[in-house]
Amino acid sequence: MQLEDMILVSIDDHMIEPPDMYKNHVPAKWADKVPKVVRNDQGIDQWVFQGHATSTPFGMAATVGWPKEEWGFNPGAYSELRPGCFDVHERVKDMNANGVLASMNFPTMAGFNARTFNESEDKEISLVMLRAYNDWAIDEWAGAYPARFIPLGIVPMWDIDLAVEEVHRLGKKGCRSISFLETPHVQGFPSFLSGHWDPMLKAIVDEHMVLSLHIGGGFDVIKKAPEAPVDHLIVLACQISAITAQDLLFGPTLRRFPDLKVALSEGGIGWIPFYFDRIDRHYHNQAWLHHDADFGGKLPSEVFRDHILACYITDPSGLLLRDRIGLDIIAWECDYPHTDTTWPESPEFSWKELQDASCSDDEIHQITWQNACRFFDWDPFKHIDKEQASVGALRALAKDVDVTRMPKNEWRKRNEAAGIGVL
Amino acid sequence: MQLEDMILVSIDDHMIEPPDMYKNHVPAKWADKVPKVVRNDQGIDQWVFQGHATSTPFGMAATVGWPKEEWGFNPGAYSELRPGCFDVHERVKDMNANGVLASMNFPTMAGFNARTFNESEDKEISLVMLRAYNDWAIDEWAGAYPARFIPLGIVPMWDIDLAVEEVHRLGKKGCRSISFLETPHVQGFPSFLSGHWDPMLKAIVDEHMVLSLHIGGGFDVIKKAPEAPVDHLIVLACQISAITAQDLLFGPTLRRFPDLKVALSEGGIGWIPFYFDRIDRHYHNQAWLHHDADFGGKLPSEVFRDHILACYITDPSGLLLRDRIGLDIIAWECDYPHTDTTWPESPEFSWKELQDASCSDDEIHQITWQNACRFFDWDPFKHIDKEQASVGALRALAKDVDVTRMPKNEWRKRNEAAGIGVL
Repeated sequence: MQLEDMILVSIDDHMIEPPDMYKNHVPAKWADKVPKVVRNDQGIDQWVFQGHATSTPFGMAATVGWPKEEWGFNPGAYSELRPGCFDVHERVKDMNANGVLASMNFPTMAGFNARTFNESEDKEISLVMLRAYNDWAIDEWAGAYPARFIPLGIVPMWDIDLAVEEVHRLGKKGCRSISFLETPHVQGFPSFLSGHWDPMLKAIVDEHMVLSLHIGGGFDVIKKAPEAPVDHLIVLACQISAITAQDLLFGPTLRRFPDLKVALSEGGIGWIPFYFDRIDRHYHNQAWLHHDADFGGKLPSEVFRDHILACYITDPSGLLLRDRIGLDIIAWECDYPHTDTTWPESPEFSWKELQDASCSDDEIHQITWQNACRFFDWDPFKHIDKEQASVGALRALAKDVDVTRMPKNEWRKRNEAAGIGVL
Repeated sequence: MQLEDMILVSIDDHMIEPPDMYKNHVPAKWADKVPKVVRNDQGIDQWVFQGHATSTPFGMAATVGWPKEEWGFNPGAYSELRPGCFDVHERVKDMNANGVLASMNFPTMAGFNARTFNESEDKEISLVMLRAYNDWAIDEWAGAYPARFIPLGIVPMWDIDLAVEEVHRLGKKGCRSISFLETPHVQGFPSFLSGHWDPMLKAIVDEHMVLSLHIGGGFDVIKKAPEAPVDHLIVLACQISAITAQDLLFGPTLRRFPDLKVALSEGGIGWIPFYFDRIDRHYHNQAWLHHDADFGGKLPSEVFRDHILACYITDPSGLLLRDRIGLDIIAWECDYPHTDTTWPESPEFSWKELQDASCSDDEIHQITWQNACRFFDWDPFKHIDKEQASVGALRALAKDVDVTRMPKNEWRKRNEAAGIGVL
């Protein structure tokens, strides 16, 4: 096996929703209520919904086109972005250039857990727009290239019955996963431990879908020092996946739903051997807590493995201990267009890391696509031949794709001249 | 090398302060103000200070004598404890029975960071009692067996000048380390990042002492769900060491004090390779943050290694990746008399783990005693011959020590009959 023979399925990337996303998905009576992109006096594009500027979904969320010196939390304009951020056809070209067969895309403007809609005032309108987001994301974005995108949706967190209803609606249209909040209690919602979310979890199980918990949403679970620099968020966000796992495992959400599947998106894998050592020792050592009964005779690490898919962008130490994690719960991700992405050298980057860890060919296939496809019960080869799905085959389609990083101003000039990213 | 040839120096154990600890260390005018142990109607011993019951320092903090079924957060009485918890002569016998040469002991009643004194009202009295604690811990407890204890003290957190003064006072009497709070901002103090503690850190550096940050004190840095079971505290406490390290490393406390040495007590080691992968990737990837200048051209992991000693009780995954951690920053600990301790089979437990990880004899010596002695600049062999310091030699002295775990009631009966643990 060579680098070119790898097949890459990434279970964590992001779309920057395009300004016209609501065009086809909202009944006429709501047309003037949709979230809109407004360019302000400083040339900055902002999403506005129900009278509030909800986000400037750029800066750190869409750095893929820029040199590192231009990264930061500074907002920007659509025309400054690499078009693959918001245009699905350009996205597929960028995936080809990076040899990536398929991708699951998390929302930006809408929020990983539909935050924009959860926090708005008029819930009737919010529900319309949340559903329209899902219809756009699943039917229009993912639907344009069925071999290339694993459909992902969001649910209204403000009403558990509506959340259940939306899970079923999405399940019927082929959605494979729900993006939710890793530690709901830090955003003022009931925790996973409370049981409040159980009807929704049951619906997800009934639809054979996966609960995807992306890092970042629960960052406030850490009470950081007031002086903490931006490094804290970037470095520690992965550490929170252990807290999320702990909530689910000892909560006991996972034990209550034997068929629930949870993806810890961007959580990394290197923390897992340490966590397993700790929870299995805890199980044996703290016998007075009687977890032998709670876990049905299984070790906590076994229950974790029954339910959870972990994923990583770069994780050399974790790969060395892959046997202690479990080879069938490790998946790869690309994280386009965020700062952590390895685009456009993901194949080179990942191949070296997998080789450095002495992974066998079979292990590479498990990690780079098989685990993801099995876990999300999603088969790209219904739509594309396997020979056309490899890094080598996809890159052959993308010889004309320019992957050069360029300053924002240069993007703005080029894109605006071509009518791209113009409101 | 055989198990019996190991030399064990533990940098994290605990004493349960005995009821008469203040007898020799408080001037007569303050004699009626000392913290006192009072046995209540239910037969439970409580420390009382300045009119408040401050702690029932038993239950989970002193389980070493009991079968697992009797563990829990239930309070108890001194006479229910294995006497090695609070009697230094009995402690040394228990260390011999476990083949442990030396130990650094953290406070219980006083709190890892002198919490009992920080939170009391009359600060004049508190300061007298805090200093008396230090005099007892260093001169009486550790001083009774200079080859067997690494002296550790605490400082008044309510006044930085007093803290500086106490560091110097302790330094002069041979104290090797200050026990402090891992994330001071979660208990309402200024954070490490604030710079508030810098004069104290400077004093610690000037006295060539080590800052010891024990897990647990900062547990509230995690906003846990209201329904979180006790497992969360036990399992996740180690995860907080990564947050502590992050505060110090990107704070930038460690960079401001090139000679500051910090021990992350009971923090475990298995999280470190993942954390190093993350911070070193962060350093390279987020070039816009210009950490190349901040870290003086070193990688963050290198700065960590220059300053920090990590320690573990049981950590099989971490030991497998010891090369990625750094062999000279790993130390072993026993955690007597807490639930996590491996007493009285620490040699068997640790030997197996070290052998399973294929550690060489040299590596075993580094991990079980050399790193600790070097880092704390403390040499037991001024007081004991090396041949008398091994597991085999010490255990030969302890053939009469009964290590049987017994129910609390049995201890109470035996101890009270012998006048042990009676107020």
